Amino acid sequence: MSEYTKIYLEENEIPTRWYNIIADLPEPPPPALHPGTMKPATAEDFAPLFPLALIEQEVSQERYIDIPGEVLDVYRLWRPSPLFRARRLEKLLDTPAKIFYKYEGVSPAGSHKPNTAVPQAWYNAQEGIKKLTTETGAGQWGSSLAFACSQFGLECEIWQVAASYRSKPYRRTMMEIWGGKVHSSPSEVTEYGRSLLANNPDHPGSLGIAISEAVSEAAVNPEVRYALGSVLNHVLLHQTIIGEEALLQLAKVGEIPDILVGCTGGGSNFGGLAFPFLREKMAGNMNPVIRCVEPAACPTLTRGEYRYDFGDTAGLTPLMKMHTLGHSFIPEPIHAGGLRYHGMAPLVSHIYELGLVEAISIPQIECFDGALKFAKSEGIVPAPEPTHAIAAAIREALACKESGEEKTILTALCGHGHLDLAAYDKYLQGEIVDLDLSDEDIAMYMKDIPTVD
Amino acid sequence: MSEYTKIYLEENEIPTRWYNIIADLPEPPPPALHPGTMKPATAEDFAPLFPLALIEQEVSQERYIDIPGEVLDVYRLWRPSPLFRARRLEKLLDTPAKIFYKYEGVSPAGSHKPNTAVPQAWYNAQEGIKKLTTETGAGQWGSSLAFACSQFGLECEIWQVAASYRSKPYRRTMMEIWGGKVHSSPSEVTEYGRSLLANNPDHPGSLGIAISEAVSEAAVNPEVRYALGSVLNHVLLHQTIIGEEALLQLAKVGEIPDILVGCTGGGSNFGGLAFPFLREKMAGNMNPVIRCVEPAACPTLTRGEYRYDFGDTAGLTPLMKMHTLGHSFIPEPIHAGGLRYHGMAPLVSHIYELGLVEAISIPQIECFDGALKFAKSEGIVPAPEPTHAIAAAIREALACKESGEEKTILTALCGHGHLDLAAYDKYLQGEIVDLDLSDEDIAMYMKDIPTVD
Repeated sequence: MSEYTKIYLEENEIPTRWYNIIADLPEPPPPALHPGTMKPATAEDFAPLFPLALIEQEVSQERYIDIPGEVLDVYRLWRPSPLFRARRLEKLLDTPAKIFYKYEGVSPAGSHKPNTAVPQAWYNAQEGIKKLTTETGAGQWGSSLAFACSQFGLECEIWQVAASYRSKPYRRTMMEIWGGKVHSSPSEVTEYGRSLLANNPDHPGSLGIAISEAVSEAAVNPEVRYALGSVLNHVLLHQTIIGEEALLQLAKVGEIPDILVGCTGGGSNFGGLAFPFLREKMAGNMNPVIRCVEPAACPTLTRGEYRYDFGDTAGLTPLMKMHTLGHSFIPEPIHAGGLRYHGMAPLVSHIYELGLVEAISIPQIECFDGALKFAKSEGIVPAPEPTHAIAAAIREALACKESGEEKTILTALCGHGHLDLAAYDKYLQGEIVDLDLSDEDIAMYMKDIPTVD
Repeated sequence: MSEYTKIYLEENEIPTRWYNIIADLPEPPPPALHPGTMKPATAEDFAPLFPLALIEQEVSQERYIDIPGEVLDVYRLWRPSPLFRARRLEKLLDTPAKIFYKYEGVSPAGSHKPNTAVPQAWYNAQEGIKKLTTETGAGQWGSSLAFACSQFGLECEIWQVAASYRSKPYRRTMMEIWGGKVHSSPSEVTEYGRSLLANNPDHPGSLGIAISEAVSEAAVNPEVRYALGSVLNHVLLHQTIIGEEALLQLAKVGEIPDILVGCTGGGSNFGGLAFPFLREKMAGNMNPVIRCVEPAACPTLTRGEYRYDFGDTAGLTPLMKMHTLGHSFIPEPIHAGGLRYHGMAPLVSHIYELGLVEAISIPQIECFDGALKFAKSEGIVPAPEPTHAIAAAIREALACKESGEEKTILTALCGHGHLDLAAYDKYLQGEIVDLDLSDEDIAMYMKDIPTVD
């Protein structure tokens, strides 16, 4: 046990470029479509929502994009993040496999989300924007954006899914500490919100609804833009700093992964870790199996369809070609594992279609069971989202125990669970159950997806 | 801003010895007294509560004590902890001072407490102990000990102050994730607890009461010992790893502190940071002002008396000579800043009496105001306890702004506030007020202190 536990990089070893995997793909992902004309969306179509610099990144063909110096300065508040060798988990599992996890919970918000919140806030500030709007579910993204806005003097207005707003008051407090203004969604602030509350004053809300509210607020004010925490190309681009660091860290100890597993909700944590490794795989430098892990309760890649759909519930956003369960899909409330978005990042969906990555889904009891094993051995209490990645890593490690293979397994622990302990409490009380999502249920939501020729 | 933000050490640079300041003091601290005989307590008196190795450390005169290899292995899950240069806070304050903070929130429990929980659990396991009991208030110590016990296969039973047990359910969940068994204190499990509940079924509890319950449970079972998270010499000893690392880190950037400020509740965080610097000061290698910072609502050093008192409310522990407000003192419920113990570590009290350190108290609104400035600039949301240290550092930095001095200020950010957001919520809602603790109030509690010749 006296060998290394963590692999650190020096601050001056932080990668200074994000990696744009589009430059290396055999074919580009299909374009987004304007929701009115159903024609490929132009930069002008996106301009009311995003600053020009981010629109350029969204469609860029450049392989590498420089990280601005002021963004790197903020990254240094927590980056480089540590890469851990999970020696104690390996011992608990009695596996010959080596398990590595890249830990993003060291950021002020406790997750990987600030990796993109910070550059998004910075680019908006550079273009004279005064306020950003966004949605949040459990609150990880909203708190990350509030933190990022506080660094550059921007206001931040957040629509939080009502069910979370009511049951997770502390995430709201965290957003407010950093100066964020938080609404329960549906809210009285937007026309769409008011229309939903008129029908149901206790409406639990959804991510898609909160996106609609945040987008509608930004669209009508030239000094306000919208920020999305996952799904889009530029978001995944910013997250590649995770994988770039992990490549450097593994190289320091002479390790190459045989398998990489990452949890996938909107796709940004997975893309952030996996894309730099996929580049190395496409270049023939390594040959890891790369696998998406999603919750059985929201199985966009494994059971959704690959087709054009809206990013939000009201249909205000451009249509994106992605694996989707339908923009009106909402996971069952009993699902406590996060990763609740109805679609998958178009870029992850495209890469999956190209056969470059695999996907599996895991039911939530197995995820929480893995999380407890992890907490008792490695110490860190994981956020519910990465418990999917941990459960997948444990599956692999136990398979190695059977086969005797000494595989090197890499995963991302994208956040800690300090603000998600209610989910663990439910698990410890035996209130977490695995749900069967029927084909009929999925087909019902699919009917709402518009038809695109 | 492109210079360093954090100063890291490599894992192989972790100090391998704890520092015992008693070896360097001009006179030793007064001994603890047996509560029955009022004679100096012997090793046998402590044996029902603590393992022999820790009793030896409690009275050791050795300057350095080696950290066991298996303890170092667990430390490596989060140590060395980073030392930050608070460049963004400096900029916000527009001060010429340099502010450094040692951040202990990177541990699995989110505070400095595991630094002693881990060796305490290990030494007990080495002596064949099966279970540790302890008390906890907000839950930082209880969760740290539960984590530590999980690493060495010990059971952990925790009495949590009832007011916290009811208002902070998530800390209980965290303890349970690591396998801890948690009681609300006063509890039905102990005779003392039952007697208090008989008088008041809604008794809010206190740290002193919870200590009494945990001690009484350990005292009657030879396979069970008790663990304390602060106050005692061996606890402060284990925490010196904080200051030893900080010395190495400051040396890497050629800095020497002009002033060191640390928050003091029981004294372990302060002692952990300050004692190695005090050694260097006594040796003539540097000359920092070293200052304890305590809450105005629980001012043990600045308004308590230096005399023998019990460590717990029921009077079961040995008497210790310390600054105390009386063992029946309980801070007002409106006080949200932690650091609620009625006494101060005998070793810190002794050093204060020797004139080696200073002490001030700060009211809580100033502390939360400082914490918000800190969170908006440095990102991290501090636990309520270190907001006292932050407020003191801000006072110093603003004094430097007035005087133009470029002082180097060092403090410890001993934990993050992710599980204390209710206190911030109260502050943001304007529900936090500063209380005047009258001399009459203090005198009332002082009457309960036994007289020792």
